[in-house]
Amino acid sequence: MNYTNSFSRVTREMRSSLIRELVASTKNIEGLISFAGGFPSPLTFPEKQLSEIFGEVVANEGRDVLQYGASEGDALLKKELMKWEGYDLDPDEMLITVGATNALYYYGRALTEPGDVILCEAPSFLGSLVAFDALEVDCKAIPFDDEGIIMDELKEQVSKIRAQGKRIKFFYIIPDFQNPGGISYSLERRRELLRFCIENELPIVEDNPYSRLRYSGEPLPTFYRLAREEFDGSTIVTEIQSFSKILGPGMRIASVKGDKALVERMVSWQQKVNITPDCVAQRVVARFLERGLMDPHIENIKKFYAPYLNKMLDELQKNMPATVKWTKPEGGIFLWLTLPENVNADELFKEAAKNKVSFIPGSKFYPPGQERYNTLRLNFSFATPQQIEDGIKRLAELLV
Amino acid sequence: MNYTNSFSRVTREMRSSLIRELVASTKNIEGLISFAGGFPSPLTFPEKQLSEIFGEVVANEGRDVLQYGASEGDALLKKELMKWEGYDLDPDEMLITVGATNALYYYGRALTEPGDVILCEAPSFLGSLVAFDALEVDCKAIPFDDEGIIMDELKEQVSKIRAQGKRIKFFYIIPDFQNPGGISYSLERRRELLRFCIENELPIVEDNPYSRLRYSGEPLPTFYRLAREEFDGSTIVTEIQSFSKILGPGMRIASVKGDKALVERMVSWQQKVNITPDCVAQRVVARFLERGLMDPHIENIKKFYAPYLNKMLDELQKNMPATVKWTKPEGGIFLWLTLPENVNADELFKEAAKNKVSFIPGSKFYPPGQERYNTLRLNFSFATPQQIEDGIKRLAELLV
Repeated sequence: MNYTNSFSRVTREMRSSLIRELVASTKNIEGLISFAGGFPSPLTFPEKQLSEIFGEVVANEGRDVLQYGASEGDALLKKELMKWEGYDLDPDEMLITVGATNALYYYGRALTEPGDVILCEAPSFLGSLVAFDALEVDCKAIPFDDEGIIMDELKEQVSKIRAQGKRIKFFYIIPDFQNPGGISYSLERRRELLRFCIENELPIVEDNPYSRLRYSGEPLPTFYRLAREEFDGSTIVTEIQSFSKILGPGMRIASVKGDKALVERMVSWQQKVNITPDCVAQRVVARFLERGLMDPHIENIKKFYAPYLNKMLDELQKNMPATVKWTKPEGGIFLWLTLPENVNADELFKEAAKNKVSFIPGSKFYPPGQERYNTLRLNFSFATPQQIEDGIKRLAELLV
Repeated sequence: MNYTNSFSRVTREMRSSLIRELVASTKNIEGLISFAGGFPSPLTFPEKQLSEIFGEVVANEGRDVLQYGASEGDALLKKELMKWEGYDLDPDEMLITVGATNALYYYGRALTEPGDVILCEAPSFLGSLVAFDALEVDCKAIPFDDEGIIMDELKEQVSKIRAQGKRIKFFYIIPDFQNPGGISYSLERRRELLRFCIENELPIVEDNPYSRLRYSGEPLPTFYRLAREEFDGSTIVTEIQSFSKILGPGMRIASVKGDKALVERMVSWQQKVNITPDCVAQRVVARFLERGLMDPHIENIKKFYAPYLNKMLDELQKNMPATVKWTKPEGGIFLWLTLPENVNADELFKEAAKNKVSFIPGSKFYPPGQERYNTLRLNFSFATPQQIEDGIKRLAELLV
């Protein structure tokens, strides 16, 4: 049987993960220093604590957690999560999913038809952009500055799209330690964007994998919290919170907080796509939270990553020419370089591979046709401090 | 924000799981004996062995399994699974998914557009039917007898659909201990159906959650195996094998074997919907298989369930009037009753609830508009033997 002519249109046209192919292209280069990935350091995994809890949960609660679970997620995990985050929500305002991408997929399926317009940040997380491809939506990217989305650009784009008679289904943002941009929205910009979205009935989906990984400065309220607390309990924001960067992505656990009717429809999608996330992993996260292990663990991760970020900022400062600019994040795992206009980072990637250093060219983080080419993303959570020193030097050699 | 008017069409129209609502409607009836669910007995879960393996895997391989894994699934699990099943496949012919429904969803997404025609058995598994709703496909149900699908009915339906200029994208079957029907295809019918589907380029997706749970009689080759071994290595069949009924559904692990190009596209869907299944659970299943624990464990489950099935068959024989017929499965967890034409099982359900016994009316297992009403499904894996005796008596009282 030849299936090639049987594939659905969206299946034929789907982009594969370009990052995966890029990373594969440099796999066999000996001594390569990679700032390309987005993986947390395995040295931050609390494997000893988790090993004990996994063993205990399966031994003591096996008859429960090895059985089919609720499609909306484990009730105990939802309870512990609310306690940890400081919310007293109706359980029906929360849903557990197989990681954050899964949550975004359900959200998109619940709200969009093929051809619908959605908004994202320019640049934005590639994994989400390819998930939007699967929804067959038309994604428009809005540029941001150091304080968040540029409101005038947003307003202009919204007017333009609406003037064409089209409805914008949602705005996808990563407000804390943005991937790939490394910026965080200021409090003022958060309020300004919220006010605009509420006035214009433009739903926000807030992707929040990194906000807990703050190494300096003051934490800011999420959009979800601000909307509830300062905007009359508005449900315009749906927050996706992930355990991938603070516990371990292999466990595939994320949570969603949002409007009840919307969450109920997302649960309905989960019933059809996955039935339920892994019930063992859900209960393990619940027990991890219940025992108060999460906050001290996050303190350890922060202590671990902070020197990595500082090292990378120092080395950039020491080695890069004045024509190169970069974001100075206070957390997360990425920073973003802007090269002179005439430098193409796709070309630089090939040169860099020869010089045994790797990154992701910025062009990969824009919807098709909206690329910018003089930017690149650096990850600082995976290479060692010595590798950071050597790698930034190797990269700078190509730019001076 | 009121999301109700923002939902996509398919989201507005999706049926929720009717079984869930039915089960909920009888939840507070004290002393109710339920044959309604489809849950494995928690007494069959190998929680002690799994507890040890979970603990060990996370302690010893935590840096690997807590990290992001491959979208096609854990390489070790694929290797152990092939060894266990007796295949020597290219790893690219196999994919691990978040349970069987998830696999079916990717399969459907890869092959269908909204409005496409697919075929299923009449009756068929409700969970799959609602997943097909999410694909917005037009599902035609073909009746079966004790040996499998009725070939003349299939041929007639295929001709009719093709005469309308429509293409049938695939045929969904559950050939062993069918849910809800409790029948298994004979070897002859397997060959006949395969020959027809190969000649007519009609892909088969074979749902296989139960074939290992055979309590008597001789095991038969799966459609996947027959196609490979007797039909020139044909890739017309994609098999979905699940661990839900032989290990524990809470772990959400299933596997897919099929055509390489098709599997590659399903992996691409997994990348966009879930990234990867739970990596801890995948490795635990791999180690469980590697240690040779699966076959003895399945022997235990079979020893556990066989008396339940026999008890239910005995009690039906003793108590039911001659006008009621039922399937006599040699495995699985369900059997199927056919009542006199004039009895409506939807009505009987309400009477039965008053008599403190519960089942699923057969009408729930057909695509909308194709229902039959004088049938019902009984599960025999959950109630105790004493409950089976009492429950069948209570049901029979309403039918004599």
